[in-house]
Amino acid sequence: AAVKAKGDEIRAAKDKLKASGLKGKEVDTHEEVVKLVAELQALKAGAGAPAAAPAARADKPKEPKKEKAEKPKAKAKAETTLAKPSKGGGLDVKKEDDTPVWYEQVIYKAELIQAYPVKGCFTLRPWAYRIWELIQGWFDTEIKKLGVENCYFPMFIPKCYLAKEEAHLDDFAAEVAWVTKFGNEDIEEPVAIRPTSETAMYDAYSNWVQSHRDLPIKLNQWCSVVRWEVKQTTPFLRTREFLWQEGHTAHATRDHAAQEVLDILELYAGVYEKLLALPVVRGTKTKAETFPGADYTTTVEAFIPVTGRAIQGATSHHLGQNFSKMFDISFQDPNDPEGKKRECAYQNSWGITQRTIGVMIMVHGDNKGLVLPPAVAGFQVVIVPVGIKASSTDEDRTKLSDACANMTKRLSDAGIRVKLDERDNSPGWKFNHWELKGVPIRIELGPMDLDKGEFIMARRHIADPKESKITGKDATLVEDVQRALDGCHKDLYDRALAQRDEKLVKVDEWKDFSPNLNQGKLLLVPFCGNPECEEKIKDTSKEESAETEVAGGLKMGAKSLCVPHEASYSKPCPAKCIHPECTFKGVTARTMFGRSYQ
Amino acid sequence: AAVKAKGDEIRAAKDKLKASGLKGKEVDTHEEVVKLVAELQALKAGAGAPAAAPAARADKPKEPKKEKAEKPKAKAKAETTLAKPSKGGGLDVKKEDDTPVWYEQVIYKAELIQAYPVKGCFTLRPWAYRIWELIQGWFDTEIKKLGVENCYFPMFIPKCYLAKEEAHLDDFAAEVAWVTKFGNEDIEEPVAIRPTSETAMYDAYSNWVQSHRDLPIKLNQWCSVVRWEVKQTTPFLRTREFLWQEGHTAHATRDHAAQEVLDILELYAGVYEKLLALPVVRGTKTKAETFPGADYTTTVEAFIPVTGRAIQGATSHHLGQNFSKMFDISFQDPNDPEGKKRECAYQNSWGITQRTIGVMIMVHGDNKGLVLPPAVAGFQVVIVPVGIKASSTDEDRTKLSDACANMTKRLSDAGIRVKLDERDNSPGWKFNHWELKGVPIRIELGPMDLDKGEFIMARRHIADPKESKITGKDATLVEDVQRALDGCHKDLYDRALAQRDEKLVKVDEWKDFSPNLNQGKLLLVPFCGNPECEEKIKDTSKEESAETEVAGGLKMGAKSLCVPHEASYSKPCPAKCIHPECTFKGVTARTMFGRSYQ
Ligand SMILES: [Zn+2]
Ligand SMILES: [Zn+2]
Repeated sequence: AAVKAKGDEIRAAKDKLKASGLKGKEVDTHEEVVKLVAELQALKAGAGAPAAAPAARADKPKEPKKEKAEKPKAKAKAETTLAKPSKGGGLDVKKEDDTPVWYEQVIYKAELIQAYPVKGCFTLRPWAYRIWELIQGWFDTEIKKLGVENCYFPMFIPKCYLAKEEAHLDDFAAEVAWVTKFGNEDIEEPVAIRPTSETAMYDAYSNWVQSHRDLPIKLNQWCSVVRWEVKQTTPFLRTREFLWQEGHTAHATRDHAAQEVLDILELYAGVYEKLLALPVVRGTKTKAETFPGADYTTTVEAFIPVTGRAIQGATSHHLGQNFSKMFDISFQDPNDPEGKKRECAYQNSWGITQRTIGVMIMVHGDNKGLVLPPAVAGFQVVIVPVGIKASSTDEDRTKLSDACANMTKRLSDAGIRVKLDERDNSPGWKFNHWELKGVPIRIELGPMDLDKGEFIMARRHIADPKESKITGKDATLVEDVQRALDGCHKDLYDRALAQRDEKLVKVDEWKDFSPNLNQGKLLLVPFCGNPECEEKIKDTSKEESAETEVAGGLKMGAKSLCVPHEASYSKPCPAKCIHPECTFKGVTARTMFGRSYQ
Repeated sequence: AAVKAKGDEIRAAKDKLKASGLKGKEVDTHEEVVKLVAELQALKAGAGAPAAAPAARADKPKEPKKEKAEKPKAKAKAETTLAKPSKGGGLDVKKEDDTPVWYEQVIYKAELIQAYPVKGCFTLRPWAYRIWELIQGWFDTEIKKLGVENCYFPMFIPKCYLAKEEAHLDDFAAEVAWVTKFGNEDIEEPVAIRPTSETAMYDAYSNWVQSHRDLPIKLNQWCSVVRWEVKQTTPFLRTREFLWQEGHTAHATRDHAAQEVLDILELYAGVYEKLLALPVVRGTKTKAETFPGADYTTTVEAFIPVTGRAIQGATSHHLGQNFSKMFDISFQDPNDPEGKKRECAYQNSWGITQRTIGVMIMVHGDNKGLVLPPAVAGFQVVIVPVGIKASSTDEDRTKLSDACANMTKRLSDAGIRVKLDERDNSPGWKFNHWELKGVPIRIELGPMDLDKGEFIMARRHIADPKESKITGKDATLVEDVQRALDGCHKDLYDRALAQRDEKLVKVDEWKDFSPNLNQGKLLLVPFCGNPECEEKIKDTSKEESAETEVAGGLKMGAKSLCVPHEASYSKPCPAKCIHPECTFKGVTARTMFGRSYQ
């Protein structure tokens, strides 16, 4: 009887939702229905049993299929991990009002991400993976020019490797995932899933290096790594498994290695600036923030204006001889006349991750959804036929359709990624759809445009509808579109740069530190570089923020981001370290501090 | 004292090895030295302790560094997993004499593989990974033309997914690797590492499909999968982790799905025929060999003449509605006027793995090493300057060097992958080096060739040194080289085809079955398709092989490979099933049987 009553309740809820305009699976997956269905399941499973969580249903005996809405459906699962699904197509939260929810809505509704039932893991849908492929394509070509070759090392790391470099291990140990079983059997010697591949690779390097002629070794691999985060995870930005590349090189001299560190850093800056239209600060990490096992770590630091937080963009490390001594990557010193002295190789490692995509979404995205810079847009241009009415003749329709196809071909032949959307949906629906997905340029083409030999381009990154639209000439189609795309990139970059620079301040005295920090700014300050002093800066700034309003809401202490390489960031530079308790007076370059992701 | 004596013994052994021509690390890593060093370690660790296994040394407290040879060195590790390291540069085993050892020597000496301390896992070095990249590049382009998009699903599969499709799970369960810990903590709900991603992906598909307009979904991912093999592993051919692509598509109609199965199969045949210069038989698996969860499985089957064994090249499955019913990938039937009926999607899955590389090595490789078909050769051409003597003038040297650089540029500009080898080593050393690595064409260029406006091309795939060499004209450099490369591919393919066809026989009566099988042949036989009858064929052929000599040495029973699609394989076809105990008389197409890898 209770089951029957619950069934009726479900049907009533569904009717109500249908009346409100939802249909099909939208109804079945609505949170209200999902909740009721779960309650129904619990009733069926017997009184006293807790309501079955949707994710557990797969283990249950199959219910006979009766009515779609009552079936335990996998659908519900994704929804339950999505904090606040919005109704309908667009976003219902403003970026500036609730950034985390806005971010979640953008990534789901722009079809970048699919929720997954393993905590901290997310599926990259084609629209997101395409961004990664485009980043990969560019970076892979560039590193091959530097003589880097791709390879693939196993994902499993034996315990003895991880134990070898203790400082290195300590940093990852708590987050390392271990495979201990296969089938029902225990594995004799459990293996870790790579959190990074230094140790796996360098043992091989040791085998390969016999003489200085075997150097340099420059290897890279594109793969995923696993760090079992216990902190809150966020798609793209912090996930338990993530995609990255890891480059590992060994050189005969420190100079060659040091040069490469900077060459790679410049490529990472290129990914941000040339592809993602995001400004970054190139710099070197302080001692406290240096990669464990590295002599020094260089970084590109990005900034997310809406939260006032910096984010590490990618790092290029010089490992010195730390690993080569440990793993014996050594060669006969060619300068030793007796040929007895051995020299250890100088090594680098460097990596960039799918985090790039998250930063890009956070900076460029707006209240209509994703905004993609042209260089990483799966489609740079979408063509939407418009102006066809019920009264339009077949001839009109054919003419427009042919013109759209012709335009698509000309743009495609010119190397522009273009999509012709000829689906049944209304032009308005298509406009929203592609705006949500962030396609840089929408071309609207109608019978009247054809007559004039013109077309309309609506530029996604310009919010004002009137300002967004410009007219192109059919005779100069490719040039006009290319110019508009270049303009998109430049506008996006310039806007992000202006927003970043507005927040970048030189602070000389401690009294100005926390007030600026709490306004979501990046502070260029004189700092001694001492890890203990850095800890004090973090603590003091956290204490001073306790009683005050903070941009972005998170009252964490300030973290050092990097010592910028560009001299202008340091001019002028006070000699005394900024922390009141520090007596160091030999500072020569400013360090950038701020609140930061991760 | 014992330590001192052992130290002397090591030094004596090393001197002896040096005298025999080994040097540097070759000496340190020689098995004799490794063994003595291990004994020394054991002595140091105290009497009664077992000799330290090389792989365990990383866990030991560090020994003070004294003499290179006595240091516990990572080097030894790789060697110990290599069955029979050969001395010097070339191969010391003939392919036909001991194929497994030959194979192992080729893959290590051609720098394709590096041994790894986790059993069944191997590192793909750049020379091997490049082959995979070239296969990837071609196949990825082709599937994108079919509308397939790339994506990335997490490597972790929750237990509830794997449990969902039992037939599917059964096939993998015993080999599934489980992550049960991170750091020192137990994971509440252990997760599997994907052995394949059907279950992970189809739950998402269920979310994405609401109407027939959401179909087709055509996704692919390039990733690695893990199957914890307990059987003997072989690099490329059977490993615990391997690289592959997995395509997963969902269609509104069976016809669309069925067409795609064949389109993809043809692309797989293309990988073998167009890239790897290997003939394959396209066909459909028997019921017994069909993928669990599939309605039917199509396959391309390759053949390895030296062992007389077939090998499954790649498979393209039609899953019917098996998974879509399980995961509810359903949509409103557009043909139902009331819009109430729901229809389940028709699905395919298809995959090709790094095994391709192993098959290619096995078929084309020879007693000088690897032989690469041009389409998958990292370098298609290597240029080696020759004819420079001690008496050569600086002008001669510069002229030759410039000519080599010029030639390199012209070939490279024409899209040919070319390497100029200007290292210090002798031309003979370089010839051997690049022959071992299988580069299709070596261009030898010397002062006399320059004067004549000619160059010599040595073609790797032709064993006879005289026949191998042909002359090209500088004036027609690109055309001559391109023609020679095309010839390499054709020769390799034709040779493999002839070797395969020589072993392909039609067998109509059981009395001829085992005799042909034992000669390493592929048998085209009338077969009823019944799994029990197939089991009998396997058993009977195994029994009948017990007393006799068998090509390749392995006396396993015959396995069905496929029912070939091409009609000529079946003409004529007896109606009665070949097994004497089977009474079926309605056979219409022959099935190919043979001994097989996997
Ligand atoms: Zn200080
Ligand atoms: Zn039969």
